[in-house]
This record gives sequence, structure tokens and C-alpha cells, in this order.
Amino acid sequence: MEKTIVEPRTLPGFMELLPGEQQKFEQIKSVLENVYRLYGFTPLDTPVLESSEILLAKAGGETEKQIYRFNKGDSDLTMRFDLTVPLAKYVALHAPDLAFPFRRYQIGKVYRGERAQRGRFREFYQADIDIIGDGKLSIFHDAEIPSIIYHILTKLGIEDFVIRMNNRKILSGFFDMMEVRDRTADILRIVDKIDKIGIEKVQEELKDLGVGPKACESIVELIAFKGTKEQIFAKLDTFAGKNDLFDEGLADMKAVVGAVRAFGLPDTHYTIDLSIARGLDYYTGTVYETTLLKHPEIGSICSGGRYDNLAEYYTNRKLPGVGMSIGLTRLFFILNDKEYLSGSNGSAVDVMIMPMTDDLGDAIALSEKLRAEGIRTQLYLESGKFKSKMHYADRMAVPYVIFLGEDEIKEGLISLKDMTSGDQSKMDYTDCVARLKERIAQSSDKPIVQM
Amino acid sequence: MEKTIVEPRTLPGFMELLPGEQQKFEQIKSVLENVYRLYGFTPLDTPVLESSEILLAKAGGETEKQIYRFNKGDSDLTMRFDLTVPLAKYVALHAPDLAFPFRRYQIGKVYRGERAQRGRFREFYQADIDIIGDGKLSIFHDAEIPSIIYHILTKLGIEDFVIRMNNRKILSGFFDMMEVRDRTADILRIVDKIDKIGIEKVQEELKDLGVGPKACESIVELIAFKGTKEQIFAKLDTFAGKNDLFDEGLADMKAVVGAVRAFGLPDTHYTIDLSIARGLDYYTGTVYETTLLKHPEIGSICSGGRYDNLAEYYTNRKLPGVGMSIGLTRLFFILNDKEYLSGSNGSAVDVMIMPMTDDLGDAIALSEKLRAEGIRTQLYLESGKFKSKMHYADRMAVPYVIFLGEDEIKEGLISLKDMTSGDQSKMDYTDCVARLKERIAQSSDKPIVQM
Repeated sequence: MEKTIVEPRTLPGFMELLPGEQQKFEQIKSVLENVYRLYGFTPLDTPVLESSEILLAKAGGETEKQIYRFNKGDSDLTMRFDLTVPLAKYVALHAPDLAFPFRRYQIGKVYRGERAQRGRFREFYQADIDIIGDGKLSIFHDAEIPSIIYHILTKLGIEDFVIRMNNRKILSGFFDMMEVRDRTADILRIVDKIDKIGIEKVQEELKDLGVGPKACESIVELIAFKGTKEQIFAKLDTFAGKNDLFDEGLADMKAVVGAVRAFGLPDTHYTIDLSIARGLDYYTGTVYETTLLKHPEIGSICSGGRYDNLAEYYTNRKLPGVGMSIGLTRLFFILNDKEYLSGSNGSAVDVMIMPMTDDLGDAIALSEKLRAEGIRTQLYLESGKFKSKMHYADRMAVPYVIFLGEDEIKEGLISLKDMTSGDQSKMDYTDCVARLKERIAQSSDKPIVQM
Repeated sequence: MEKTIVEPRTLPGFMELLPGEQQKFEQIKSVLENVYRLYGFTPLDTPVLESSEILLAKAGGETEKQIYRFNKGDSDLTMRFDLTVPLAKYVALHAPDLAFPFRRYQIGKVYRGERAQRGRFREFYQADIDIIGDGKLSIFHDAEIPSIIYHILTKLGIEDFVIRMNNRKILSGFFDMMEVRDRTADILRIVDKIDKIGIEKVQEELKDLGVGPKACESIVELIAFKGTKEQIFAKLDTFAGKNDLFDEGLADMKAVVGAVRAFGLPDTHYTIDLSIARGLDYYTGTVYETTLLKHPEIGSICSGGRYDNLAEYYTNRKLPGVGMSIGLTRLFFILNDKEYLSGSNGSAVDVMIMPMTDDLGDAIALSEKLRAEGIRTQLYLESGKFKSKMHYADRMAVPYVIFLGEDEIKEGLISLKDMTSGDQSKMDYTDCVARLKERIAQSSDKPIVQM
């Protein structure tokens, strides 16, 4: 019987990494997880598949085009396209069993039928945190979120970034004052181009939008204003006392800026940017974006904000929250593509044991002892030429190789070869363990990103 | 405008855990991951969605009924139903970039359209390891796998289990000798019932299958034979020298049994069981099953074996391998359902700080210091009555609460309350950190399963 071979392939837009890259991906993921955990976020895992009625309770026609939706038996199913909608369902469904504020992190795959192109993914990881209150949620949580962003990025080894913050209440209140709130989205889009097209062209476009000359001037003056936090607050203060929402947003922003320093976010790494707004139909207070200073062209790598009502489509209970999301797959793709990921962190193995005797008993026993010390140990069990064994160790990028031959066994010693320097020496077990642990500590101290 | 509320729900057969349960699930998952890593397996992550042509290259009609398959645009897509087929595709596709033996672990969700019932899942985690050779793979890897099973289960806190091993070559060779190899599946199914229906009834059924009286006797004598490894080897030796495949299997099994001891698998925790065969069209050598002694009714919790050819549907390259799989979602469900999971491991937070002053600066700064020590710290930021704060700490099951009031700040001390004993005392920062770290060490030493 002839066997048909199906040409193996992976779907376009679906990331599938080689072992060395995957190792680096896992390292980045575990930095995120560790920081999320240190801040007391509880892990959450929700289904990849949900009833379409649930996932699309809010979505409009445009979202529908982008989703993976299908029927199975009588069920109309959709693969999740973000982690926020499943969170809203989860909190609404399980609210009686949850303690509020409910703090959860979730790192999981989501699916969007994007046009497949380089750097765009149809299956990708999001890494989200959210803090959900029951009816109310203290503004100080809004200060915690950017601090977490800061700790994650510096822990990864990324130093040159800035977190840009704004408050939607300030924008909405201000546009109320100017009587142009109905055109918020258009105005922000136009003002955003100020660096490219200049003030005059912006004012022209605003006029085309029907914004009066005085409002026009005020908008450009405020939204495009750049300066220190103090200068921006001074500017904002000149508009204070005229609109409740604006005043509320200003007070909130001052509280957040006052608290972020205590959370360890240095002044150099965040700024107030009155031009950012994020998703217009979702965020209602503080908003965040994060820009890599060397790569502003890739846009925000970490964004989020405050919303009034997480689960309005599933419950009448008011659940305000604040959170942020990292597009992990995209971030990894960029860092890897630009060769910012340290090459020395890519091995799944700390040491490889090459037995040089027919009897494997001693080599196996040694491998078990090393594992009990927490050392990731691979025992090479294939027979074959010395050269092919060393070629394997090279390809696996293992930092150390142990040779265990008759001499070593007789003497109770271990031959340890440093694969980076090429040095090889005999030592006893204790020294060998110390050397391996030192190397492990060094490489775990070394951040994965070097840019 | 009236808002429509969609009743929140999760699809039947899709596990969605509350935070305390999820915390325990993560702990079990991380024990698996850690052991896999210690043995030098590299993490792998493949897409949940693949082209149907790829995933179903092998499958017959029956599998098709159980799968989630749909069209999106021009693409015929299927959600993966196991991690083995995607591994086969991965290895065939990326072989030139891999070093062999290729050792990977993968813990991921798979999808099967099972009839939804209690304890049966449509979305569930599998946790697989495999070692793939290029053309050949040393038999000693077959000894490594059961040792890994042993280390995982004991690390979880499961003590009463037995790993049952067999070798398909012994079975096939023996049935060859008896001239009944074409009826292997039926014979094994009948012999399996020996404890329930007795030897005579088994022999009757074998006769109905057309097995001659002498073969019948030999089959019952060998397959149903129970004893120590030595007794089983002695029994097997009586059939040696008559069939090459049988002899090869016997030699393999002796090599495996000889090596597992060195790998730290004690004699008490594994046995040779000539009646097990696993998936008949896949495994070709060593096979494993793992039974919880207190719960034989749940079947094998961890199974696997040796196969000749991983990726025959995608490449002509011969890729033999050995591996095993843990049905993580099912295992968790059983352990949780039978209340074997330790309740004290369920908090996402090591300590919760309750600020007792309006100014939060000191409390925030303390939270950051504790996190820098690796202590998972939640800062309670809501205002409210003391009683409601303590109620929250109780519901979150946090082991310790810190009170930071004006007195403490003035004295440079911390009030630490042990939520288990109810004891509360003032201490300095160093003592507080020491106390918290002691508790963290204790709870991470404590296995998650207590049965």
C-alpha cells in the first residue's frame, strides 16, 4: 500500500518557533508572570471557545468579519478575540464567588482573522492584568498599573521607554467646554498629526470640522501642549472650575501622578500626553500607552486604562476597573526581529552528560543527583562517535558538558567542559555543582533583552 | 436606549475554575513543567488551529466526528485534538533546524467534541514529553520516561501508584508464535477481563475467537501471569529463542528494567504487566500506564510508549520516539473532586498590606520593598470600614496581613497578623521579611496533593 505524504506546513499568521526562540519567548513570558504574581494578581484561565452570543454581545459588524466563528452541532461558537470579553463574562458569571477588588492576570492566545502579513498574527498571546471593583474602585489602582509596566520592561532589560498617560475625563470635559464633544474622535485624530503637518494645517482641518476659531485655538493650545508634569498641570489649571468632569479628571490625574513615584516609577519613564485617548467607546478615565524611544514606529507595546463598567452586557451590577494588556507575540516578534534578544539565554539544558563507558549506571545516577540540585541536566544516551556527540552539544547550545569515563569514575571525579571558553578540567562533584549553579545564577540575572 | 443583558455562561465541557482552584491547577502544572525542564526537555508551543489536511492526514472517520473543524474563507481548519499530530508536523517541517534526539515538552489545550458529561472535557490540557530520534533512538530513553513519571507524581505528593510497563514486541512476537497475531486486539480485550470472569470463561471466549486449545493455554499462562520482575522474566525466558521480535522485546525490557533503578524509580512503584498494549496502531515497543492504587477505576493517569515512526504522514524520514502524556485537566478534576488538593496552597497573595493612614506613601513604599524580596504583596487601596477590609483578607485566604498605621510609621515598625493563628505582633522590617519568607518556604515545600 502506498502511503501519501502530506506536505507539512503551518498556517500563515500563526507563530511557530524553533526551540532556541521558544526558550526566549518562555523567558519573556515568565518575567511577565512573575511580576504579575508579585503584585498579587491571581492567575485566570478561560476557554478559548465561547458561545458566539456571549463573545459578540457587544461587537458590531466590523468585529464579526475578523473573528473565527463556526457551528458545531447546534452550537454557534467563536474563538476568543481578546481576553477582556471573557473576563467580563467570568466576573459577571462568578461574581458571588469572587472577592472585590478582583485582581487577575491572564496570558493566553486570542484569534483574529487579520490579513496575514509580516508581523501581523492571527493567533497571538495577550498578557493582561485587570483590577475590578464592585461598584467603586480607588483611583490609586490607576497608579499601580503604570508601575507594573515599568517593572516588567526594566526586568526584561528594556530601559529606553516612556509610559504616556492621559485621562479621558479631562478630554471629555474639555471638549464639553468647547462644545465639540460629539467630534472627539475626529479632533484627536487631527491633533495627533500636529508634528507631521504643523499647527496651521491642524487648525485648518479643525475648522473644516466646524470647530469655531476660539475653540480651535484652545484645543491646539491644550492638546498639543508638551511639557513637564508641573507645566501641564499649570496649563490644565487655567481651565479648571468650568466643567465638573474636567475637574474630576484633573484631580484624578494629580492623585495618580502623586502616587506613581511611591510605586517606584521614576519621573524619567512616564509623561502626561493630553493627545492620547485609546479605544473611545471603552475607556472612561486614566489611559496608558507605552512607547519604545528607539522605535516609536511600532506604536504602543503596552496599553490600557480605566473603564466604568466591565460587564454591562452580562449584568446590571456596576463593575469599574483598570487594566493593561501586552501583545506578547507581537512584542516578541519585534524584539526577536530586531535582534535585541540575548543569544545566551536560549538553551533548555544547563549541562549535558556524555557517558564514556558502556555501563550507564554512574552517568544516570549523576544526572539524577544534578537534577535534585535544580540543574537542568540532559543525559546523552545515544551511542556514536565522539565528534557527533560534540556536534550535538554544540547545536543544543549547552553551556557545559560533563564527560564521565572510566578514569573519572575510578577517581570519583568529573570532567567538566565549558563550551563557551573551551576549557576543560577535572573536579569533584561539589565543585562541579558550584560551577554550574554559578553559571545558572549569572544567566538568570542577565536580562533577556539587550537593546 | 435599553440595554439587553445576555445571560453569562460557559460552554458545557469547558473547565473554568474559581481563583482558589485555578491557583492549585497552576501549581500542579508548574510541578510538571519543572520536572520536564530538569530533564532537559525544551518547551514547545504549536498553533491550536491547523489546516485540516495536516491534522487529519492519518485520522479515520471516527476521529472526524469528534473534532472541531470549520471553514474560514478558503481554509479548511481544525482545532488540534492532541499534541502528538502537531509534534509530528513540527518535527517533519523543521527537521533541518533541529538537533536529534529532539526532546520537547508541551503543555497545551486540545479539543474533542466528546459527549459532555461530568468529568469529561471538550477543552482540556495535555502535558506531553517526547524524545525523537533521527533514524534510531537508544532503548535507555525508554527507562528515562517512567522515571520522570515517578518524579512528577511523588513531587505532587502522590505516593500510592504503580507504573505498569510492557513491550509490544513481546506481545506481537508471542502472538506470532501462537499464530494469532491478527487477533491481538480481541485477545488482549478478553484476557483483560480475567480478574472479573475467571480463567475458564476467558479460555472459552478465546476458543470462540478460533484460538486453538494449546495456544489458548499458553496465552492465559503468559499474559495473565502476575509476579515479580524476576518471575516474569523467568516465565518469558521459557518462550525465548523462537521468535526474533519476541527476543528483541525481551532484551529491550531487560535493558529498561536494568536502567530504571539508576534513574531513581524504586522497585515498589513499577511492575511488568504483560496484558497492557495501549493504542494498537501507534506504539511498537515499550508501553506505560500509571494507576492510582486507591482509584484503579479512573484508569491510567499517565501513559505513553515507544513508536517506530512519528511523522510517517509528513515525511519519509524515519523518526522513532518515546514519550508520555498526562491528561492534566482530567487529573486535576479527579484530585479536586475527591478533595485531595491541599487547601492551604490556594492564595495568590503572600501578604496583604492594609494602610491605616490617609497618606499611602509609606504603605506603597513598603509594598514595593516586599516585592523586591520576592514576596507576593497586595496593597489594599480601597477606603472602608476595618471589618470589611478583614472580610476581604479572609475571602482572599491570605496567610498574613500587615497593618501600617501612624504608630507603626512613627516607630518604624510593622504590625503583622497571622491569619491562621490570629496572632498579631509588632516587629521591624527585617523580622517581618524573615517571617514571610519562612512561611513561603514552608508552603512551597508542602506538596499540593494529600491523599
